[in-house]
Amino acid sequence: MSTADDGFRPLDENSLVEYIKATPSLLAKLGGAVDNLIIKEVGDGNLNFVYIVVAPAGSLVIKQALPYIRCIGESWPMTKERAYFEATALRAHGRLCPAHVPEVYHFDRSMSLIGMRYLEPPHIILRKGLIAGVEYPLLAEHMAEYMSKTLFYTSLLYTTTTEHKRAVAEFCGNVELCRLTEQVVFSDPYKVSQYNRWTSPYLDRDAEAVREDNVLKLEVAQLKSMFCERAQALIHGDLHTGSVMVTQESTQVIDPEFAFYGPMGFDIGAFLGNLILAFFAQAGHANEGNDRKAYKKWILRTIEETWNLFYKKFVALWNENKDGPGEAYLPPIYNHSEVLQLVQTKYMENLLHDSLGFGAAKMIRRIVGVAHVEDFESISDASKRAECERKALNFAKMLMKERRKFTSVTEVVSAIQEVDS
Amino acid sequence: MSTADDGFRPLDENSLVEYIKATPSLLAKLGGAVDNLIIKEVGDGNLNFVYIVVAPAGSLVIKQALPYIRCIGESWPMTKERAYFEATALRAHGRLCPAHVPEVYHFDRSMSLIGMRYLEPPHIILRKGLIAGVEYPLLAEHMAEYMSKTLFYTSLLYTTTTEHKRAVAEFCGNVELCRLTEQVVFSDPYKVSQYNRWTSPYLDRDAEAVREDNVLKLEVAQLKSMFCERAQALIHGDLHTGSVMVTQESTQVIDPEFAFYGPMGFDIGAFLGNLILAFFAQAGHANEGNDRKAYKKWILRTIEETWNLFYKKFVALWNENKDGPGEAYLPPIYNHSEVLQLVQTKYMENLLHDSLGFGAAKMIRRIVGVAHVEDFESISDASKRAECERKALNFAKMLMKERRKFTSVTEVVSAIQEVDS
Ligand SMILES: Nc1ncnc2c1ncn2[C@@H]1O[C@H](COP(=O)(O)OP(=O)(O)O)[C@@H](O)[C@H]1O
Ligand SMILES: Nc1ncnc2c1ncn2[C@@H]1O[C@H](COP(=O)(O)OP(=O)(O)O)[C@@H](O)[C@H]1O
Ligand SMILES: [Mg+2]
Ligand SMILES: [Mg+2]
Ligand SMILES: [Mg+2]
Ligand SMILES: [Mg+2]
Ligand SMILES: [Mg+2]
Repeated sequence: MSTADDGFRPLDENSLVEYIKATPSLLAKLGGAVDNLIIKEVGDGNLNFVYIVVAPAGSLVIKQALPYIRCIGESWPMTKERAYFEATALRAHGRLCPAHVPEVYHFDRSMSLIGMRYLEPPHIILRKGLIAGVEYPLLAEHMAEYMSKTLFYTSLLYTTTTEHKRAVAEFCGNVELCRLTEQVVFSDPYKVSQYNRWTSPYLDRDAEAVREDNVLKLEVAQLKSMFCERAQALIHGDLHTGSVMVTQESTQVIDPEFAFYGPMGFDIGAFLGNLILAFFAQAGHANEGNDRKAYKKWILRTIEETWNLFYKKFVALWNENKDGPGEAYLPPIYNHSEVLQLVQTKYMENLLHDSLGFGAAKMIRRIVGVAHVEDFESISDASKRAECERKALNFAKMLMKERRKFTSVTEVVSAIQEVDS
Repeated sequence: MSTADDGFRPLDENSLVEYIKATPSLLAKLGGAVDNLIIKEVGDGNLNFVYIVVAPAGSLVIKQALPYIRCIGESWPMTKERAYFEATALRAHGRLCPAHVPEVYHFDRSMSLIGMRYLEPPHIILRKGLIAGVEYPLLAEHMAEYMSKTLFYTSLLYTTTTEHKRAVAEFCGNVELCRLTEQVVFSDPYKVSQYNRWTSPYLDRDAEAVREDNVLKLEVAQLKSMFCERAQALIHGDLHTGSVMVTQESTQVIDPEFAFYGPMGFDIGAFLGNLILAFFAQAGHANEGNDRKAYKKWILRTIEETWNLFYKKFVALWNENKDGPGEAYLPPIYNHSEVLQLVQTKYMENLLHDSLGFGAAKMIRRIVGVAHVEDFESISDASKRAECERKALNFAKMLMKERRKFTSVTEVVSAIQEVDS
């Protein structure tokens, strides 16, 4: 357990205890003592190490980034500086929306280590709840709240150009994680890549069709450019249903290590796209006891409500702050109801289209790219799995190409139902 | 002549000589001696001080930024760090296109001082040549060369994400100049502002109409967002016809102090928009000896050729570099002639629309905003001037609103001719 030149050393369960003992802000969260600790490494994450630490008088989570991608190994190096951007984003988003972001207790840059609130049971990863068929009545409301606040307040609708450019410059440093997204979301699925996989042989022809679809490739190129070029807000960058922990009353967004100033639609689309994946996976989870029909309706309602509540909350923040520090729409030009409504309607229409495009890209990559989702992976019958995946894939292809024709989320939900019937 | 804490002191013609004497790289350009110097401050710039220094054995230009806007005075402070971004952009663009960018001999950051090649007579500012009715047969070719090289090579079509984000972050530092553009191009013309002026009383109603045009305000908001958010390439940032010096054989682009990573269309539009202004000003310069009819045709030809040659050169660079370091369009996905042509056509169509939108914004602000152009200002008869300006303004308003309907520059030229007839 030697210390590297830069002060970094990977922790294990033993050295972790020593680390906590030596770190007052962490020790305090455990009530000041490290006796009778229960430490569990929860290895369901893809990139990092996460330790749950429970003491008789308190608890916390320690997340450490190692200089490679955990699920692939040392052969795929990845800067551990991602922990810095994760901590910075957790704090920034936590300030804006404390109800839905776990508190950061401690950050150690040289150790790439974050100490944060332990989201205690019954919190589970949303994706697992969706697979189990559990309804979360507050999910849409909470996610709309989280996305509207984090995106609105970090955009030029609220921040000054000066602060915006300062923050954009800082998050340009998270370039390695941006590059990873560029590769696995916007590139690999559209070419032959050693990392791609799909439910073979069932989807062989479908995967090939993605690689040969010129119109799809045109659309994904434009989405990729937007991802690379457009610094619209401080986005989470990885907002799938595996980055959300839930109970019936609580919704908590974790894991923003991909955060940077990018297009808002990338976050909204990630969440909605993963709900659509969950929808198409339901047929694979149905059994005699539960045909999942009611649950599918709930997912569709959640998709619809998430966007509609997001819309309402985002525009409400805009109206509340129309005389605020934001420099995009200056009061003397835009603070008259007719023109304000005109620009807001256009802004939200564009944002819906961006979200549908990015959502579709996120769906496609989960079916024919490197990283798949448990929603489908947990369907053991490969032919049934492939059938679910094919429906989702075809819907996503249509959505990416036709996204500009949708004027409301209700039309999107209708389109999903049509494909499903 | 005291030295400030930061090492900055504003030079005058005397201290300039001492500075050159003490600076080997500058002294060498004058043949090693400062005897018999002719020094002339050329005060036609808006922001900075420019000294022409001619010795028997050589010459150079010294440009110094002071911590305010020259043409307004110390009441409008402006960071002198702009000189750093100007020097950095001159060098970057000069490396990419040495034929059309003056060589930088010396840069002193603490003095905000650039030493560069003197563009000796008969070089004149292009705007003055356009007012005088002089044709420049190589102008379109040269500007297309300059814009295609500087924009292509600094975009993600050629640079890697890693280098792109590094450079974007650096130029985020030029935020004060970006804010100035946001204000004077995208905001002030659309509201009552102490800085706005126009040919009154003739255009009083026209200026008011700009402030009351909700559709125009919707469009300019979208262009402003693109300007603030979209880091597409290292743009010059102020590419009007007053930033270009010309002879019959030579075209040199100066003054990129507004440079940052922004939308390419902002540069292309600035140049084309200012040519359109020059076109509409011709009626005010016509006299018995010269009705300017032939010259107007040449301007229209130049507009058309600039875009068409830019298109050709830009796509040629793309094709030449399609296996290069750029990460936007990866070879295994896009290097097949059918899909490559599809994405290139779309890219250039979007770029034309952006250019027309930004060009229109630059035209409007020169008629009802703070900074006007000599093309119109030199028309002494106010009613005649207003007539020219009104035509230009109405054309620009139409162009901004309808830009997405134009599929070629030829259609734009036809529309100009229609308004003019
Ligand atoms: N604050 C927390 N409270 C409880 N569990 C957590 C917390 N943070 C992470 N986890 C658990 O650890 C897993 C991996 O965490 P995550 O941040 O997603 O890591 P990775 O970046 O490797 O994907 C999560 O799926 C969740 O089960
Ligand atoms: N390299 C040069 N060679 C000759 N003249 C120059 C040169 N640079 C600037 N000038 C002259 O100085 C004027 C102001 O320069 P410019 O760089 O445009 O300053 P500003 O930033 O104040 O607008 C130009 O219009 C041109 O007449
Ligand atoms: Mg995770
Ligand atoms: Mg993660
Ligand atoms: Mg100038
Ligand atoms: Mg040169
Ligand atoms: Mg200048």
